[in-house]
Amino acid sequence: MLNQERVVIDYVSPQINNGDVFIKRVVNEIINVDAHVLVDGHDVIAASVLYKHEKAKIWKEVRMQLIGNDEWNASFYVEKQGFYTYKIQGWVDHALNWQHGIERKIEDGQHVNSELLEGAELLKPIIKKANKEEKAYLETLVDWFQSEKNYDKAIKEAVSDDLHEIFVKYPKKFHVSSSKDFKVYVDRKKARFSTWYEFFPRSASETPGQHGTFKDCERLLPRVQNMGFDVLYLPPIHPIGEVNRKGKNNTEKAQEGDVGSTWGIGSKHGGHKDIHPELGSLNEFKALIKSAKKYNIEVAMDYALQAAPDHPWVKEHPEWFKWRPDGTVQYAENPPKKYQDILPIYWEGKDYKNLWKECLDTLLYWVECGVKIFRVDNPHTKPYHFWNWVIAEVKKKHEDVIFLAEAFTKPKVMARLAKEGYAQSYSYFTWRNSKHEFIEYMNELTQTDQREFMQPNFWPNTPDINPYHLQGANESKYLQRYALAATLSSSIGIYGPVFEYMINDALPGREEYLNSEKYQITHYDWSIYFQLTNRNELSGTFLN
Amino acid sequence: MLNQERVVIDYVSPQINNGDVFIKRVVNEIINVDAHVLVDGHDVIAASVLYKHEKAKIWKEVRMQLIGNDEWNASFYVEKQGFYTYKIQGWVDHALNWQHGIERKIEDGQHVNSELLEGAELLKPIIKKANKEEKAYLETLVDWFQSEKNYDKAIKEAVSDDLHEIFVKYPKKFHVSSSKDFKVYVDRKKARFSTWYEFFPRSASETPGQHGTFKDCERLLPRVQNMGFDVLYLPPIHPIGEVNRKGKNNTEKAQEGDVGSTWGIGSKHGGHKDIHPELGSLNEFKALIKSAKKYNIEVAMDYALQAAPDHPWVKEHPEWFKWRPDGTVQYAENPPKKYQDILPIYWEGKDYKNLWKECLDTLLYWVECGVKIFRVDNPHTKPYHFWNWVIAEVKKKHEDVIFLAEAFTKPKVMARLAKEGYAQSYSYFTWRNSKHEFIEYMNELTQTDQREFMQPNFWPNTPDINPYHLQGANESKYLQRYALAATLSSSIGIYGPVFEYMINDALPGREEYLNSEKYQITHYDWSIYFQLTNRNELSGTFLN
Repeated sequence: MLNQERVVIDYVSPQINNGDVFIKRVVNEIINVDAHVLVDGHDVIAASVLYKHEKAKIWKEVRMQLIGNDEWNASFYVEKQGFYTYKIQGWVDHALNWQHGIERKIEDGQHVNSELLEGAELLKPIIKKANKEEKAYLETLVDWFQSEKNYDKAIKEAVSDDLHEIFVKYPKKFHVSSSKDFKVYVDRKKARFSTWYEFFPRSASETPGQHGTFKDCERLLPRVQNMGFDVLYLPPIHPIGEVNRKGKNNTEKAQEGDVGSTWGIGSKHGGHKDIHPELGSLNEFKALIKSAKKYNIEVAMDYALQAAPDHPWVKEHPEWFKWRPDGTVQYAENPPKKYQDILPIYWEGKDYKNLWKECLDTLLYWVECGVKIFRVDNPHTKPYHFWNWVIAEVKKKHEDVIFLAEAFTKPKVMARLAKEGYAQSYSYFTWRNSKHEFIEYMNELTQTDQREFMQPNFWPNTPDINPYHLQGANESKYLQRYALAATLSSSIGIYGPVFEYMINDALPGREEYLNSEKYQITHYDWSIYFQLTNRNELSGTFLN
Repeated sequence: MLNQERVVIDYVSPQINNGDVFIKRVVNEIINVDAHVLVDGHDVIAASVLYKHEKAKIWKEVRMQLIGNDEWNASFYVEKQGFYTYKIQGWVDHALNWQHGIERKIEDGQHVNSELLEGAELLKPIIKKANKEEKAYLETLVDWFQSEKNYDKAIKEAVSDDLHEIFVKYPKKFHVSSSKDFKVYVDRKKARFSTWYEFFPRSASETPGQHGTFKDCERLLPRVQNMGFDVLYLPPIHPIGEVNRKGKNNTEKAQEGDVGSTWGIGSKHGGHKDIHPELGSLNEFKALIKSAKKYNIEVAMDYALQAAPDHPWVKEHPEWFKWRPDGTVQYAENPPKKYQDILPIYWEGKDYKNLWKECLDTLLYWVECGVKIFRVDNPHTKPYHFWNWVIAEVKKKHEDVIFLAEAFTKPKVMARLAKEGYAQSYSYFTWRNSKHEFIEYMNELTQTDQREFMQPNFWPNTPDINPYHLQGANESKYLQRYALAATLSSSIGIYGPVFEYMINDALPGREEYLNSEKYQITHYDWSIYFQLTNRNELSGTFLN
């Protein structure tokens, strides 16, 4: 294509997937832009970073500096939430080029009369834009440049810093080249900096044997704050399925009185937009959110897209499930693991648009109830495009909403989910233990392009993971794990009070908690913060 | 955007600038394609590389293999010159997924009747596409899968390799995802493998003091072939300017009889489409090309876009030059170097379209005379977009044409010219001498993305560069430089007979030849191949 642009812009950084995926920042962070900016020949070029918030009409501009070896750099701050676009412009700067050229010729002892005449032509169009003081200066220069009699003054001013600054201030962008547009999404600060505390509301009661409630949770808020947490994440608070309900320790048949897994969502009491009756009412949930705010704590909700067999969706939207030739729906499984109490959503069904819409509506419903943080359960078993869409749709209306991806899975899958829009991601920290492992993992997170889109949240434990190195571990190990999480990442989380009480009895040979709260209520003495000695040490079983 | 594709394709390699720039190969080379191919959940996926020559109507397909960690790979050969397009497709393979699932359940001891019914539904659409033998087999299977009485045979065949191969052969691409299109340009083999010999035709005469001719060059062809070269590159053969002609050793004023620089192109005898009268006629040039072919040698022409002050362009197209306010055109210079015998082209002029067209016409003219290789002089002082355009235009009509970029300049500029379409590039080999330098430089050329677009040509010397390490060097150093060039790169070149005669007298303190042939005729005894001892040793000045 015939095109007179002479500057070429290449290797722009930061950027992900050549700009098809946005990079991430939080408010008041910096974007440090690098690029190769080239021209043919030896002319002096200039380059700028142009950037603009999605709601702004006018681009802001910051001039790039040559670092050397054709590498240029400039930085800008992102001060508002939302999308910013940035791009690079480059051009041959004929005025600066003229100044550079005349300087070399003067040094070389050449007579530069012809060059001064050229310079006068460069000054004339600037006079129209310049301020009063600059105008007077430039008019004098034009006069000197055009008459031999002021030659000595003319060549002195031709190479002066004053003139240089005017040329920089009023660039004439001749045949300007532009990079493509790149996008950065700017979140609120909590997307980057957050401290999470997870506990099961149903275990929050002071009375042994009694089902905890939102009111009990309110009572625990000062405790959570005193430990230094600013996010309180509750496992699902929705009605728990009664059909195929799991018993204690994940046994297949629930006994009378068994409470079932909180992730087996949906029953005759309702589905994803409803509250498990024993926890309290919607108003009590809203009251908890409101009280938490006073303690500078945000309540994070679990978002788990799956259904108990008695979830209302199963009858109302049978197309959202995959029916087998024998008329059943295959329960969720990952052999040998079986989740008989859960039916997976059928994402490949024909009615997927209504399904996606309902999933979005569910999120918007809870956002309107005051929830601004969602911990998404197993996002890696739902389509990437769905997450990309649903997160973008929520954020269009509510830019404060933050999503944490609970994907403990293959590295590229976790990275891709982050690219789809998750503000935070669970990480491999839970299993990283040796110095070598930490160096390798921290390099991956901070020295590769992951740093532009992946914001890891470091959890020493979760209700699903009682890691081997914590089983039978003593206080120093717990402190170590907490200190590592808190210093290596700007977002951390623990599942308590199991963590701070150093409870770590496991199913034999498994990284799972014995008597897991996922399937039963546990009674704690919530009045203390830490259990000072290890339970296993007390019971004499500490062998490591 | 609502979209039911479930597979995500990322980090496709090889590719340059996310596909905006094509990669390069020569005929019969391989493209080894890697990509991350991901799906949500645990379904079995499949992926293919699709590729197509620009003139083909139908895509060829090669299935990718999972290497591990979600990395997939496949390879294909490029057998024809021209552009190929390649892309990756990925999809959830429900048939393979079904087979994988039923296998795990059978191993787990489950009864899989419902799964067999599902399997029968997967087989039915394949029967329509299958060949006779496959059809009979599949019909039997449908029968067995649907009746309990053949259960044992059914589950054996369900997991069989036979069925697996049928599923692979007839994939049902459900909601297939596709990467963007990537391009590879396939050149003839010489683009990658070539051995260049450069000499000045005007020095080719057997008779001292006589101007060499194309006829003299013909006489030297067996010598060039015997040394193992397959490209004979001649410095410009066009009329040499008479205005401001340079004298010997680049002196500013030519003396009576001085022949001038061959790069000072254009005089009353014509310009870039004409031949310097003293070298012979156009027919004699064509005869040289024809003779060379018999020796398996191609004649490469110099393409130097600049004009002597008396070049016909200056009068006919004054808009192609930049006129200063004093009515002169500034001669080319790179202070303190001055090229008083050359006017640079003004690429920013308004008549640039006609200029570009004339540059293209010039190339096409010589291609039609039989020239298929151009060594382009100083391409880095002409716009990148121009090269991109002119090379593409020539190759559209004449795919055999090869361009070598004589850009000894900054690394990113050299790389970018290669991206614009140059088949070969001069390299820093000329100045790389230590082991460390070689390791570093060879890593850059072969282990970075440069290997996909930069084909370096290694020259131990050129008429412009008499490198310090060859000044006063002995035979072993010359052999070493040649051996290094010939083994480290698949394209090499020397400027002779200066190189093989180990002539290396330099301008004091400069990497330039004394009495350079750029400005004068030299008489050689062409009857010998190598001068066995170093000239400087003979004259007792060998000190190193």
